[in-house]
Amino acid sequence: MSRTVTLAVIPGDGIGPEVVAEAVKVLHAVTSGTDVAFDLTTFSLGAGRYLDTGDVLTDEDLAAIASHDAILLGAVGGAPGDPRLAGANIERGLLLKLRFSLDHYVNLRPTRIYPGVPSPLADAGEVDFVVVREGTEGPYVGNGGSIRTGTPHEVANEVSVNTAYGVERVVRYAFRTAQSRRRHLTLVHKTNVLTFAGSLWKRITDEVGAEFPDVTVDYLHVDAATIFLVTNPGRFDVLVTDNLFGDILTDLAGAISGGIGLAASGNINPDGTSPSMFEPVHGSAPDIAGTQKADPTAAILSVALLLDHLGLTEASAAVTRAVTADIANRAGHPRRTAEIGDAIVAALSL
Amino acid sequence: MSRTVTLAVIPGDGIGPEVVAEAVKVLHAVTSGTDVAFDLTTFSLGAGRYLDTGDVLTDEDLAAIASHDAILLGAVGGAPGDPRLAGANIERGLLLKLRFSLDHYVNLRPTRIYPGVPSPLADAGEVDFVVVREGTEGPYVGNGGSIRTGTPHEVANEVSVNTAYGVERVVRYAFRTAQSRRRHLTLVHKTNVLTFAGSLWKRITDEVGAEFPDVTVDYLHVDAATIFLVTNPGRFDVLVTDNLFGDILTDLAGAISGGIGLAASGNINPDGTSPSMFEPVHGSAPDIAGTQKADPTAAILSVALLLDHLGLTEASAAVTRAVTADIANRAGHPRRTAEIGDAIVAALSL
Ligand SMILES: CC(C)[C@H](C(=O)O)[C@@H](O)C(=O)O
Ligand SMILES: CC(C)[C@H](C(=O)O)[C@@H](O)C(=O)O
Repeated sequence: MSRTVTLAVIPGDGIGPEVVAEAVKVLHAVTSGTDVAFDLTTFSLGAGRYLDTGDVLTDEDLAAIASHDAILLGAVGGAPGDPRLAGANIERGLLLKLRFSLDHYVNLRPTRIYPGVPSPLADAGEVDFVVVREGTEGPYVGNGGSIRTGTPHEVANEVSVNTAYGVERVVRYAFRTAQSRRRHLTLVHKTNVLTFAGSLWKRITDEVGAEFPDVTVDYLHVDAATIFLVTNPGRFDVLVTDNLFGDILTDLAGAISGGIGLAASGNINPDGTSPSMFEPVHGSAPDIAGTQKADPTAAILSVALLLDHLGLTEASAAVTRAVTADIANRAGHPRRTAEIGDAIVAALSL
Repeated sequence: MSRTVTLAVIPGDGIGPEVVAEAVKVLHAVTSGTDVAFDLTTFSLGAGRYLDTGDVLTDEDLAAIASHDAILLGAVGGAPGDPRLAGANIERGLLLKLRFSLDHYVNLRPTRIYPGVPSPLADAGEVDFVVVREGTEGPYVGNGGSIRTGTPHEVANEVSVNTAYGVERVVRYAFRTAQSRRRHLTLVHKTNVLTFAGSLWKRITDEVGAEFPDVTVDYLHVDAATIFLVTNPGRFDVLVTDNLFGDILTDLAGAISGGIGLAASGNINPDGTSPSMFEPVHGSAPDIAGTQKADPTAAILSVALLLDHLGLTEASAAVTRAVTADIANRAGHPRRTAEIGDAIVAALSL
């Protein structure tokens, strides 16, 4: 019995198309000869499309993307300070719009220090944790505004919205993730200052935690969490946190684990009511676009997350194994984007 | 002509009294024989006082503290999870109340890697920057609330409030600080997501920046800033950011520069309309309270910031020199809190 998976591919801007090309190469290689076929549709979206047409993401785009089984995204965003993009916000209008519209309430960001990868930390030790970042609430909801805008009397507010419904479902996912790993969950928030949102996160974690007696739970303020990420990252197994804290912690996690070039992520709707989206954590890096200098590893590891999400656990493990093997041999001359993709494809059959 | 400075001293909880004792020792030593005398009044405030009396900070306390020239604070906060403190929030009711009531709009947090101090970074290079954190706005204003609290339908909001008035004054201070240093300012925010607050911060930085043509300015999203703090902290001179991002970045900065045991801070009202407050960035660490294991260096460096703020620049430099000399010789056996204070006093006269 063969299975066809429809995949919406959004290469995006900057280095996005280059890294996605390698990710697709690996996806095809690892599934060729199996009974799963991937049927790809490419969507030209991002700053480039906006400059051409004035559209960021139309209702038709969204509907078309939503009709797929899953999404692979490279990176979006134009050159910082490009005056033609002033006023547009590709990140909000495209990336965040997809996450919110498709109810990607779990933003899953695993961090490992792969053998052979130099960390900026002198003594990182073994590092293998997952950040479960909430994806549809918090200060990301776009619930802000300003008055007397542009004057010396401007007031600009941003509202972080947190619901029991939204917190419960992501915390539950985090507990399940912890249960399948080393059974330790760290809640990160700032309960001593953000007392209302903090109480909600704390209460829900306590309540859901009662259903997972085999998972130990601790709590860190977000400021303290950054300290431990550089002094003792090995203490973490699963972290759960809000949208903004998760954004900050995962870039830091990427940095300590040898660079954002290796950090993959999944924007997941665990209920399966809409397609989940997989993307490298890095941005579009317009300064090196088209030079074959970008590292496609994060995009390729995003394919591993995608395969895992689709239940293709063997293929997912094969990609991770091939990446791990390739990474272990990275000392030496820098390779072109396509060379890294080719090497990982070659490592698949070892 | 002699001068008397009235100093309100708030030793606080946990290790606070121990580190403050050493800070006061150094303060007296460096000013003895000069024409400046410090007149100290100690205020017993914190979790201990709350448990004894039920009061966190009364109007009378606040008025008495506000009548001083400056404030030295150790650390406040009880043991995490102490059920007797549930419902109380010593941090908000005391520390943040002081910062807000006394209009400490500049939260000044210098970071240096002192020669001889091991950093968790393998290759930190030279690090010497100052974070100018806004102290009276942002998500710290306490403008939050919840409905259907405690139920599955709870909604908990937190509002970040940002005003042109509040942003302008702290950004201006940051530009002045940059002008007295290496003339480089980095604005940190999250303008692509927090578009209203972000636009305000960006606009004000551009406007004030026009008055400081000799200061170069760049911008980083907060997530990217954490990456550079571990991969290239030497790039920073002065950073300016909001209350919450500043909280997160300065703990991380403390960690990369060899530990929060060295991180000093000033809560400053540059207009002089109320006393400024100096405190180590670290917390009360109740687990090691009373054991003479705490490092008083951050409290002592806070005295250097205090002296500088009072215009006693020579005494301030002498404290910094003595600390630097002491730190350079720290390899070897751990010393007791009082031993470190004594050693720094001894180094004052070298
Ligand atoms: C581009 C930006 C809106 C996005 C975010 O803040 O979530 C990015 O930083 C990320 O982490 O995926
Ligand atoms: C104790 C807490 C309220 C405080 C803050 O968040 O400002 C602390 O973390 C700090 O950085 O001084």
